[in-house]
Amino acid sequence: MNTFGELFRVTTFGESHGPGLGAVIDGCPAGVSLTTADVQRALDRRRPGQSKVTTARAEGDVVELLSGVYEDQTLGTPIAALVRNVDQRSADYAKLAKEDRPGHADRVWRERFKHRDPRGGGRTSGRETLSRVIGGAVAEALLKREVPALSTVGWVSQVGPLVLPSMEAPVSRAQVDATSTRCPDAALAAQMEALILDAKGTGDSLGGVVTVRVDGLPVGLGEPVFGKLKALLAHAVGSIGAVSGIVWGPEDLEARLRLPGTQFHAARADGRPSDVYGGIQGGLSNGEPLVLRALFKPPATLTDHAKAGRHDPCILPRAVPVVEAMVSMVLADLWLHLLARPHHAG
Amino acid sequence: MNTFGELFRVTTFGESHGPGLGAVIDGCPAGVSLTTADVQRALDRRRPGQSKVTTARAEGDVVELLSGVYEDQTLGTPIAALVRNVDQRSADYAKLAKEDRPGHADRVWRERFKHRDPRGGGRTSGRETLSRVIGGAVAEALLKREVPALSTVGWVSQVGPLVLPSMEAPVSRAQVDATSTRCPDAALAAQMEALILDAKGTGDSLGGVVTVRVDGLPVGLGEPVFGKLKALLAHAVGSIGAVSGIVWGPEDLEARLRLPGTQFHAARADGRPSDVYGGIQGGLSNGEPLVLRALFKPPATLTDHAKAGRHDPCILPRAVPVVEAMVSMVLADLWLHLLARPHHAG
Amino acid sequence: MNTFGELFRVTTFGESHGPGLGAVIDGCPAGVSLTTADVQRALDRRRPGQSKVTTARAEGDVVELLSGVYEDQTLGTPIAALVRNVDQRSADYAKLAKEDRPGHADRVWRERFKHRDPRGGGRTSGRETLSRVIGGAVAEALLKREVPALSTVGWVSQVGPLVLPSMEAPVSRAQVDATSTRCPDAALAAQMEALILDAKGTGDSLGGVVTVRVDGLPVGLGEPVFGKLKALLAHAVGSIGAVSGIVWGPEDLEARLRLPGTQFHAARADGRPSDVYGGIQGGLSNGEPLVLRALFKPPATLTDHAKAGRHDPCILPRAVPVVEAMVSMVLADLWLHLLARPHHAG
Amino acid sequence: MNTFGELFRVTTFGESHGPGLGAVIDGCPAGVSLTTADVQRALDRRRPGQSKVTTARAEGDVVELLSGVYEDQTLGTPIAALVRNVDQRSADYAKLAKEDRPGHADRVWRERFKHRDPRGGGRTSGRETLSRVIGGAVAEALLKREVPALSTVGWVSQVGPLVLPSMEAPVSRAQVDATSTRCPDAALAAQMEALILDAKGTGDSLGGVVTVRVDGLPVGLGEPVFGKLKALLAHAVGSIGAVSGIVWGPEDLEARLRLPGTQFHAARADGRPSDVYGGIQGGLSNGEPLVLRALFKPPATLTDHAKAGRHDPCILPRAVPVVEAMVSMVLADLWLHLLARPHHAG
Repeated sequence: MNTFGELFRVTTFGESHGPGLGAVIDGCPAGVSLTTADVQRALDRRRPGQSKVTTARAEGDVVELLSGVYEDQTLGTPIAALVRNVDQRSADYAKLAKEDRPGHADRVWRERFKHRDPRGGGRTSGRETLSRVIGGAVAEALLKREVPALSTVGWVSQVGPLVLPSMEAPVSRAQVDATSTRCPDAALAAQMEALILDAKGTGDSLGGVVTVRVDGLPVGLGEPVFGKLKALLAHAVGSIGAVSGIVWGPEDLEARLRLPGTQFHAARADGRPSDVYGGIQGGLSNGEPLVLRALFKPPATLTDHAKAGRHDPCILPRAVPVVEAMVSMVLADLWLHLLARPHHAG
Repeated sequence: MNTFGELFRVTTFGESHGPGLGAVIDGCPAGVSLTTADVQRALDRRRPGQSKVTTARAEGDVVELLSGVYEDQTLGTPIAALVRNVDQRSADYAKLAKEDRPGHADRVWRERFKHRDPRGGGRTSGRETLSRVIGGAVAEALLKREVPALSTVGWVSQVGPLVLPSMEAPVSRAQVDATSTRCPDAALAAQMEALILDAKGTGDSLGGVVTVRVDGLPVGLGEPVFGKLKALLAHAVGSIGAVSGIVWGPEDLEARLRLPGTQFHAARADGRPSDVYGGIQGGLSNGEPLVLRALFKPPATLTDHAKAGRHDPCILPRAVPVVEAMVSMVLADLWLHLLARPHHAG
Repeated sequence: MNTFGELFRVTTFGESHGPGLGAVIDGCPAGVSLTTADVQRALDRRRPGQSKVTTARAEGDVVELLSGVYEDQTLGTPIAALVRNVDQRSADYAKLAKEDRPGHADRVWRERFKHRDPRGGGRTSGRETLSRVIGGAVAEALLKREVPALSTVGWVSQVGPLVLPSMEAPVSRAQVDATSTRCPDAALAAQMEALILDAKGTGDSLGGVVTVRVDGLPVGLGEPVFGKLKALLAHAVGSIGAVSGIVWGPEDLEARLRLPGTQFHAARADGRPSDVYGGIQGGLSNGEPLVLRALFKPPATLTDHAKAGRHDPCILPRAVPVVEAMVSMVLADLWLHLLARPHHAG
Repeated sequence: MNTFGELFRVTTFGESHGPGLGAVIDGCPAGVSLTTADVQRALDRRRPGQSKVTTARAEGDVVELLSGVYEDQTLGTPIAALVRNVDQRSADYAKLAKEDRPGHADRVWRERFKHRDPRGGGRTSGRETLSRVIGGAVAEALLKREVPALSTVGWVSQVGPLVLPSMEAPVSRAQVDATSTRCPDAALAAQMEALILDAKGTGDSLGGVVTVRVDGLPVGLGEPVFGKLKALLAHAVGSIGAVSGIVWGPEDLEARLRLPGTQFHAARADGRPSDVYGGIQGGLSNGEPLVLRALFKPPATLTDHAKAGRHDPCILPRAVPVVEAMVSMVLADLWLHLLARPHHAG
C-alpha cells in the first residue's frame, strides 16, 4: 500500500516518468505553521545535482501545495503537494521496455504487475522518495510546534569501507550539510568524496550507512506490542528501496551484542541507561537520544557506461533527508497516538 | 496497537500474570485444516523448560480454541485461542510494585501507562510472544494449503561470540530442534550450550542472532512502497521485544556492503540473482530463498541471584519459533493481498 | 471484518454454537474503572428470557474478563472478555445442515463461505450481538470518565404499526427498563406487549424502530468527510443484522423532509438549531441532543411451529442495548480522535 | 479521516476555494481501461450549471490524471487526479469570515478546527463531492472489467412532497439523464422541475430522496459482522453531507415494516426472495437487485437573496452521481475482499 501511518497518514503517488509525484498528508491538525518554502527546502536537500558526488540529472522538483494550507497555517484538512516531472528524458529509458536491468527490480515488478511502465522505474525509482520528503517536512512542522525541543539529524556514517565511529554529542544539520557527502567529520568526508568520485569514474557504485539521531524525545513514545517505536521505525526505514538492514543503537552495537548481558546492559558512569538500547526500552522511548542506523546497498549499476553521467554512484548523501523524513513521520504519528491515550493513575 | 496485519489480522491480548493470554485471528478463509494439536505443537516449541539451557519455569501453556474452527476446519470466522496462566507465582514479582528492574522497561512503561500491573511484566513480558506463536500457527496452516511448496525455518546462528556462517542448503525444523540451542551445526551447538550453561551458572546472559530462511516463495510477493515484503518483515520482527536489529541477506552482508556495487550485485555463477538481496528485490520476493536475520539483545539480568533458577540466560532457542511466527504472519497477509490484486496485462 | 473502530477498537469472535463468544477491546486507556459486574449488567439487558415477550431460551451469558483489567481498573492493555455457550441444544438445529431457513441468510452464507457451520446460525446469529454489548460496556466506562455529563439512552419507539412520537425530554434507562417492551410510554408499552404476545401465539413476528438519544455530547465530535459522526453511526448501526435503515433526527423526519428548506431549517423558538439535524451538522455534533433511529425488520419466522417457544417474536426490546452499545463504541472512538487532533487557532 | 475503503482506497483532498480538489485512488489493479475522458464524463454529471434547475455557477471542473495511468491503462500504482478551482469568487464569501450561515456547519467546524478557512465552505462544501465522483469513476472502471454484468443506476425518486413509487424494471442512466431532475418518470419529472424553479424564484430549497439500484451483483458480496455490504453502504452514503437517512429496500419499506413477519418475509410469486431485503441478506448480496435509498435534507438557504442566483435550490439531481460513486466504491472494495478470501469447501 502507498499509505504510511495511522493518525498522521501520508499517501504517496506518482511515477518517475509520468506527469508528477506527490503526497497527501492527512491528520495534521489545524494551526501548524507551514509554508511552501518549508517543503521546498526539504526537497532541495534530496534533489539530485547538489554536488559533484551525486547524479548530474537536474531535477527541478518545484513543489506546489494544492490544499490544506491557508495563509501559511494548516487548516486541519488534507495537505496535498505536487511536484511535476520536468527532466523526464523517457528516451533514455526506451529500451527498458524490452530489457530488464540487472540488479533492478524490473523483472519481479513485471511478473507481479504485468503492465510495467516502460517509461522508467515507475514506483521503484528512487524518485518515489520525493513524496516521503514532503511527508517528513509536514511531520517536522507539526513536531516543531508540539515538541519544540525535538531535533532529528541524520548523517552518512559509512561509505563502502570508510566508517565513522559513534558521535558522542549531537550534530546539527548545518554541520552535516557542510560536506558534499553529508558526513560530519570533515577529514573522513573528504576520503568518502574521493572514493565516490572514483566509483563514478569507473561506472561503479558504493553503499554504506545512514545514522539518524533524535534528541529531545519525551519518555514513553510508542505503542504496545506491534506499535512499538522501534517496530514502526523498522517499517518506515525498511520501506526505503535500497535499505538492507536496520539497527537501533550505536555504530558498534553488533560487536557489543557478543558481550555477556552484565556488560551489555551496564548503566553509564552517570547512572543513565546504556546507549545500547538506542534510546528505546520496552518498545518506548526512554528519554535518551534515539539512535538508528540504516544499512544501504550500493545502487545497481548500468552496464551501459554511456549512461554513467546520469547515474548516481552513491545515494547515501541524498538518502539522509529521506531517512530523516521517515523517522519524523513515525514520531508525528506516535505523538498523536500519545495524545489519544489519556492514561490515568487510576 | 495490539493488532498485526491487514487482511490476515492477528489481535493479541493478555498479561503474564493475569487470567490468561491469547489471540484472535481474523481473515483466515474457510476450509483450512487446523487442529488444536497444530497450535499446541507450535506453542510447545516456545515453551520454557524444554531443555537445560532455558528457564526452569514450567509454564503449562495449554491452548484452547474458542471459535472459528469446526471439525478441524476453519469456518472463515475469527479464530480465538486462549492459554490460561497457571504458574504465575506473583509473589516472586511482588517487590516489583515498588522497584524497577535495571535493563527492563519498567520505568518507561510506568511513566507512560501510569497504572503498571505490579503482578509482573504485563505486556512487556516475553510471555506476550505466546500470542504471536498462535497467530503464526494459523498463518502456517493457511500457507500450507495455499502455497504447499513453502517452507519457513529459523535457527540460532549466533550466541554471544559464537557465529554460524551462512547455510548453503535449506535446513529442516527437525535438524534445528535436534540440538538444545536450535543451532543446526551440532559441533557449534555444543559450544553454544556450554556457553549458555556457564552464563546460567554465573547469573549472566547472552544475546545473538536468529536467522530465518523461507524456500518456495512465489515471485512478486509484497506490495508497493510501504507494503514492501522487507518493510513488513522489519515491522513484524522489529516488534519482538528483545530485537535490536534486522538485516535481510546472508550472515556476511555487513561485510559485503563495503564492496563496490559491481561486486556486490554480481549474479551467481549459474546466473541467478545474488544472495545479497536476501530474496527481495524492489521490495518484492524475487524467487530466491528469503533470508532474514534478527539481532537479539542478551536478556536483562536479575541482580537477585536467588531468582537465577527461574531466569532465562539466553532466549535465542525459544525465540526461533517466535521469529518464524512473525515471518509467517507477514507471508499470509501478503499472500491474501496478492489475491486481492488481479493485475492484468492490459 | 470483525473489528470496529480505529482508536477504540473492538474485535469480536465466536459462533452461537461453538465454545463461546467474546470480544477484545484495544485502545481503552489505563485507569478507567471497570468491573466484571459492569459488563455483566450490560449483558443482562440483552439476555433472552428477561420477560414474557422475549424468547424462552435461557442463555446464561456469564462473562469473564481475561485481560486488561486489574483491581477494577483498566491497564491500558487489550481487554479480552469471554462468554461461554451453555444452552446450545445443537440438536434443535441439526436439520439446518441440510435445509436453508426461509428469510435467513443461510443460503448466501453457504454460497460465500462454502463450509457453513451446521450447528446453528454461526456468525449471522443474533447471539453475535453479545460481543457488541461487551464492547459497548467498555466504551461506556471510558466515556463516563472522560465526558461525565454524557448519557446514551435507547428505547423502542415502534412495534409493528404502534408508533411512539418524539420524546421532548430525556428518558432514563430506568424508565425504559420499567416496561417489558422497553417503550417508555406505559400505555403504549402495554399495547405493544399485547401485540407481541399475540404474534408469539401465532408463530408470527414483528419489526419496528429503536430510537437512541445522546445528551451531553460536546460540540465538534466527528471527523471530516468519511469519519463524520453520522457516517460512523450509520456504519455501526447498519452492521446490526436486522437493521433495514437508519435515520438521524426526530420520529417525523421523513414527513418534514417534504417541507421547503425555509421551514425545514427554521431555528427553534429559543434560537437553538432545529431538531431536524438530529444533533449533527457538517457531520459533527452540534451541541444539541443526538437522535438516531434504527429501523428493524421482523425476525424471520420458523415454519416449524413446534420451535415457536424458542423463537423470539420481536427482538426490539433486546436490541435496545445493542444499538446503544454501537453508539457508545462510535462516541468512544471519536472522543479519542478528538484528543488526537490538537487544533490550534494558528 | 479523508480516506474511504480498505483494499480499494480513496483519499480525498482540497478546499472549495483553494487551488484545487482531487483524489488519490490506491488499490486499483493494473490493466484496467481508464481514460481522462471517463473521469471527466463522470464529473460532468455532477457539474453545476447543467440545467436550469441547478446552480448557475459554471464550475469548470476539468480533471487531470497525475499518476497511475499509462496509455489508457491503469499501472497498479496510485491514481492521482486533480481538478483546479477556477470560479472561486472568494469575495462572495468574504463576509463568512465574520458571520456563520444559519443551517450550515460553520459554527461547529469553527469550534472544532479553530482556524476555519474564511474563503468558503472548505471541506464542508458540496464541492468536496467532486473527489468522490473521481473515486467512483475509477471504481466503475474496475467493476466493468471484473463484473461486466454489473449496472449501478441512481435516480431522483422524491423532491419535496413528490414521490416516485418503486420501479419494477431496471432503469438506464440514459433514461435518468433525459430529464433535468434525473427522475426517470417524465411526467413526474416535469412536476419536480416546476417545483424546483418555484423554490429557486423564492429563494427557497427542497430535499428528497435518491434511489440507487444495482443489477448483476454476484451472490455473497460483503464481509461478516462490521464489513457487511449494508454497513459499508451506510457508512459510504451516510458520509455525504446532506444525507439524513439511509434505507435498504423499496420505496414503501417503512410501510411494510409495520406488517407481521409472515407477510413481510413472504417470498415473491416466482419463489425469489422478497424485495424487502433490498438485495441483502445476512449482510451479503443475495443475488437480487440491490436497492438503496438516501434521504436528503433541503440545502440550507442563504438569507441574502441577492445570492439566490448562485444558490442551488435542490441538489438531488446533482447528488445522483455522488451516491452512485459511493456505492461503486463500496462494491469495488468488497469485490477485492472477495478475491482475498479463498474460502474452500474443506
